[in-house]
Amino acid sequence: MRDAYHEELDGLSDKLVEMTRLVRSAMARASTALLDADLRLAEEVISADEHVNKLETDIEETVFELMARQQPVASDLRALITSLRMSGDLERMGDLAVHLAKTARRRHPESAIPPELHATVLEMGQIAERMIAKAGSVIASQDVQMGLELDADDDQMDRLHRRLFDSMLSPKWRHGVEPAVDISLAGRYFERFADHAVHVAEDVVYLVTGQHPEDIGEVAD
Amino acid sequence: MRDAYHEELDGLSDKLVEMTRLVRSAMARASTALLDADLRLAEEVISADEHVNKLETDIEETVFELMARQQPVASDLRALITSLRMSGDLERMGDLAVHLAKTARRRHPESAIPPELHATVLEMGQIAERMIAKAGSVIASQDVQMGLELDADDDQMDRLHRRLFDSMLSPKWRHGVEPAVDISLAGRYFERFADHAVHVAEDVVYLVTGQHPEDIGEVAD
Repeated sequence: MRDAYHEELDGLSDKLVEMTRLVRSAMARASTALLDADLRLAEEVISADEHVNKLETDIEETVFELMARQQPVASDLRALITSLRMSGDLERMGDLAVHLAKTARRRHPESAIPPELHATVLEMGQIAERMIAKAGSVIASQDVQMGLELDADDDQMDRLHRRLFDSMLSPKWRHGVEPAVDISLAGRYFERFADHAVHVAEDVVYLVTGQHPEDIGEVAD
Repeated sequence: MRDAYHEELDGLSDKLVEMTRLVRSAMARASTALLDADLRLAEEVISADEHVNKLETDIEETVFELMARQQPVASDLRALITSLRMSGDLERMGDLAVHLAKTARRRHPESAIPPELHATVLEMGQIAERMIAKAGSVIASQDVQMGLELDADDDQMDRLHRRLFDSMLSPKWRHGVEPAVDISLAGRYFERFADHAVHVAEDVVYLVTGQHPEDIGEVAD
């Protein structure tokens, strides 16, 4: 009985990793759609999001069923609640990729990103992709060290996010209001995506070590 | 023993209602700070947010302690998990009020909102306040009918949000890029605030009826 239960816990973890795979693919395609004004990619991201949502619902149902049936305690209970939280974060990350794809679609056939910001947005997309890939590895491997790395990626995302604003608010900006509105929001979507990836990794770190990442950081100082 | 447990559940509900009170006050002050360029109010919102965060941590600790100690099942367990989710939503709503306050502070002594958008942003602030007030009442009273009302408020918020964009993208817009960047983000913060209020109400509806609001809607059609 107990073993079947732990198999079901593993199944949850597999589903979470599958969510990270789908979200990574959505983010990769959304970033490209945004930069290259690729309508087909944008539509793919938008329609694929239902798979992410479906996995979240699956995970929720499994968690409630396991709770009702097994009445888990202590660390098992915590693992279930953490799975709920992580699936919520991953579902949001899927939504944020969809928001980027919709921006690309709205501006098609133009690109929402002016040439001088291409490199910055490209890098934001790459960091976002790297972070969700790492979050997936952290869930699968429970690698605390990798989990702690996401903070540095998040700092880098914040720096690039500030660079977007500096560029829009510089006297050299010559693209007017509409691209500025799109880029303000797109920047925010990337930044929130990174925040959610950090949350996922933090949840794993807490689950494995019983410590919040900031406390581990303090010990390591 | 069982009674003491239910008293602790009530205590959780009181803390959630207290969170809604603090968040409502933060939103009211943040909206005013934004419209009137009131630096003192903005600073108040920013420094008061730690109380909201503290309550979230309190609720989390109580939930985990109750889970460990009482091993609740079925509806009691669901009530605890829902409390965790609601406190997460309310904490985010506090953050969004802080983001609005920081926008006000950054643009001080100017107002971040040009005169022709004052009425729209004022109304967005009022709807946000009304929604968090209703969410608090719904938690306290478990009033399902009121819980279902928040969807209509959310639709109204979305309409006002679109009005902001229409105004910024109209040929009549004469404020340039910087206010447009601020307003794009502020609009997003109001809209997300409303989404979180809807989530809180939905969680209560689900807890009371065992049904998701969209299914109740279908039955009522």
